[in-house]
Amino acid sequence: MARLKPGSDLLGSLQEIVGREGVKAGVILSGVGLLGEARLRNCKSLPEKYPITDENRTYLSFSRPLEILSLSGNITMAEGNPLVHAHVTLSHVEEDEIGIIGGHLIEGCVIFGFAEIILMELKDIDMEKNYDKETRTFQLFA
Amino acid sequence: MARLKPGSDLLGSLQEIVGREGVKAGVILSGVGLLGEARLRNCKSLPEKYPITDENRTYLSFSRPLEILSLSGNITMAEGNPLVHAHVTLSHVEEDEIGIIGGHLIEGCVIFGFAEIILMELKDIDMEKNYDKETRTFQLFA
Amino acid sequence: MARLKPGSDLLGSLQEIVGREGVKAGVILSGVGLLGEARLRNCKSLPEKYPITDENRTYLSFSRPLEILSLSGNITMAEGNPLVHAHVTLSHVEEDEIGIIGGHLIEGCVIFGFAEIILMELKDIDMEKNYDKETRTFQLFA
Repeated sequence: MARLKPGSDLLGSLQEIVGREGVKAGVILSGVGLLGEARLRNCKSLPEKYPITDENRTYLSFSRPLEILSLSGNITMAEGNPLVHAHVTLSHVEEDEIGIIGGHLIEGCVIFGFAEIILMELKDIDMEKNYDKETRTFQLFA
Repeated sequence: MARLKPGSDLLGSLQEIVGREGVKAGVILSGVGLLGEARLRNCKSLPEKYPITDENRTYLSFSRPLEILSLSGNITMAEGNPLVHAHVTLSHVEEDEIGIIGGHLIEGCVIFGFAEIILMELKDIDMEKNYDKETRTFQLFA
Repeated sequence: MARLKPGSDLLGSLQEIVGREGVKAGVILSGVGLLGEARLRNCKSLPEKYPITDENRTYLSFSRPLEILSLSGNITMAEGNPLVHAHVTLSHVEEDEIGIIGGHLIEGCVIFGFAEIILMELKDIDMEKNYDKETRTFQLFA
């Protein structure tokens, strides 16, 4: 359980926690709180063959109050370091209309106030991501 | 694991369960089901300084079928009572268009049919929210 | 923890895993990944009385890159077989606009690349769905 402080970067804080606590495998059970800014990665097109590269992606920034509706993902080991892979759903409101955005969590999602995060460490599970030659990506059980 | 009955208030039922079971710390692992009505709180503006007050918030009501896509949050102790802090994502459909809404869970989200909720109690973790003088709010680890 | 392979059906894979592993009760803790196609069920109208039937439902198909923002739900036993009940939230992007869809997970959600799923088996909990005469549906604790 962690309470992230005002002005913290959401992904940066998660990475800092799992690094400090030495979490080698885990799952994000819950995340609630408010952001003042967000930056999200989404996929705009599919390549003929995996992997996805930055040509297939869009990075969008938002500057407004955004409630964290869901934060889900996992912690694995990649190249010797714990890696947080998380996706997020966010809500905002304007003129009594609720809008929802979301995507792959990247740096640039900044906590306004506090956020309450619950991570669960998974013991005795090998969640090491290894290099998969075929797709040229780091993958679990590759 | 709880099955909420037709006509139950979602937040009210969660509060009733954690109160009855004496849950002092916990996490909402999953919630699926259908609502017939919803009421959600969102943040429309950021104050210069934390905390958020009702001047910064919008309360919106919906009367239509809404699938619970995600229900996440935690149970902590505040002023001696278990407090459910949850956010919810909901879907509806009209003329073959899916719309998504969400926000902070407040009273007024009414189950149509049944909802299946899974809570996990966290033992040996102090999740007491105490009064934080600086922000004039109840906060974990304040 | 499971890594679903390219071209896998999301619901079909989950059903295959819980069947193979003999999971009788469980919860989906996390699911992140990318779909190339999706098919979702939503509720468009409420009947006067439970249950919901196909007259109240809409089935919509999507063919585009869709990030899995949240995947939540449970595994119970129904008529002697493990049953995955899951809801999903998905994001896509077009012309720098993020759109969100979601609903009840049905067959037709196809993984592009890989998806990382974390399920938790619940032991010593009876999550058998039995026939409830009043609503003519299978329900927990009926």
